[in-house]
Amino acid sequence: MATIVEVDDPADPRLGDYRDLRDVELRKHVEAEHGLFLAEGEKVVRRSVEAGFAPRSFLMAPRWVDGLADVLATTDAPCYVLEESLAEQVTGFHVHRGALASFARNPLPSVDDVLAGARSVLVLEDLVDHTNVGAIFRSGAAFGFDAVLLAPRCADPLYRRAIKVGMGAVFSTPWTRLPDWYDALPTLSAAGFTTVALTLADDATPIEDAVAGVDRVALVLGSEGHGLSPRWERSADRRAIIPMREGIDSLNVAAATAVACYVTSRR
Amino acid sequence: MATIVEVDDPADPRLGDYRDLRDVELRKHVEAEHGLFLAEGEKVVRRSVEAGFAPRSFLMAPRWVDGLADVLATTDAPCYVLEESLAEQVTGFHVHRGALASFARNPLPSVDDVLAGARSVLVLEDLVDHTNVGAIFRSGAAFGFDAVLLAPRCADPLYRRAIKVGMGAVFSTPWTRLPDWYDALPTLSAAGFTTVALTLADDATPIEDAVAGVDRVALVLGSEGHGLSPRWERSADRRAIIPMREGIDSLNVAAATAVACYVTSRR
Repeated sequence: MATIVEVDDPADPRLGDYRDLRDVELRKHVEAEHGLFLAEGEKVVRRSVEAGFAPRSFLMAPRWVDGLADVLATTDAPCYVLEESLAEQVTGFHVHRGALASFARNPLPSVDDVLAGARSVLVLEDLVDHTNVGAIFRSGAAFGFDAVLLAPRCADPLYRRAIKVGMGAVFSTPWTRLPDWYDALPTLSAAGFTTVALTLADDATPIEDAVAGVDRVALVLGSEGHGLSPRWERSADRRAIIPMREGIDSLNVAAATAVACYVTSRR
Repeated sequence: MATIVEVDDPADPRLGDYRDLRDVELRKHVEAEHGLFLAEGEKVVRRSVEAGFAPRSFLMAPRWVDGLADVLATTDAPCYVLEESLAEQVTGFHVHRGALASFARNPLPSVDDVLAGARSVLVLEDLVDHTNVGAIFRSGAAFGFDAVLLAPRCADPLYRRAIKVGMGAVFSTPWTRLPDWYDALPTLSAAGFTTVALTLADDATPIEDAVAGVDRVALVLGSEGHGLSPRWERSADRRAIIPMREGIDSLNVAAATAVACYVTSRR
């Protein structure tokens, strides 16, 4: 059973995991250095526990304690309870969903483990927006993708906002970081995947044709601003485009991924 | 030529249009009461002017003035110039893209005007998230949709964040508010559109089948949380679903719309 700790000082050092949640750069450092991630909202907190992550602590307003009683019963971690206005001083914003929890990260699996048995894989290069990363995990899960691989500099899928937007898909989908950026796609090809890069390149074929009849496929997606790096664009087996209205070549990367996942799921 | 006005007091009442931009509820009132909308970033400011909206004023840091000189040359509106740290005190956040502008809204066109000549239309019920509304406008434009109709309570597509996410698609796509919520879909049917509601209803058919061979189509989308109202779900001509992995029925509304627009564009 978690220990309920009532807190009335927002500067209490035990609340360090929850400080300034809107300061993305600060949070990246804090979370990496302490090997933690934050879950927001009863549903996401619950899914994190169910996915086997160990809570470091909880933080919530009094009215949320009962709703999470069953979750709190499963752990010895402290549960810091404080008034909503004080919680807001700690986190820097109004926590609409009431409950927050800090979890220890687990070691990432190997690429081989993540790919074992997979038939449809998403590969994300240098996406910077956590909302997009979360939305892409969610679309991948909806359309039956088995795994997600992230380039070394892709935004963190365990960032609070990514988890929230992804509706917890980051917990149900095996994923890991690619250790080697340069040869990432040739390595996937050697492992039996056809790598299909989504791009606006001149020699790109419509996505429906690019994935037709392909067994093991890896859909490769680039960053919001500049798309894929030239290296990844050139080292993919195929280049694919989503046909759009003439003169328009602009689709948000999360929207493009949803369409590409849909088409690929029907190959 | 805009009048350059250097400002050193963040409480200057002439900056009222730009106050507390992160406070969504406050902004809704301010923007409705004054009939204004805000554009953020050089590109969006430029597109707003090109789309024929009349600037009320501009607000920017000194280093952004030159880049927008051609735009400022087209108007008599004041351009308030202040240091970035002061601008941040006005707006409540760090304005990464530097330039802001306040524009007067134009009267909305009639539904008939928006539908004239249209073959593919998006109809949004009660979406609450401005990011989703912007992303949907962008996907609609990418896949050749001719118009967007909004239920009376749908979130504002001219809200700063919607414009930004939509990459200005709200300026290039004809849109308006539906005056009548209850009979909105039967009215569209009477006007010759087949209304296709995206839903998880039991009698929904796959979207590809639902739009096959349809000439004038209106794709109907519901809110993030609860989807369509029962009235809209029942009064649509057809109910369609995006086939997903078994046991998963969760796709962000913007992702679902992108897929539905893609499929519809290929009908």
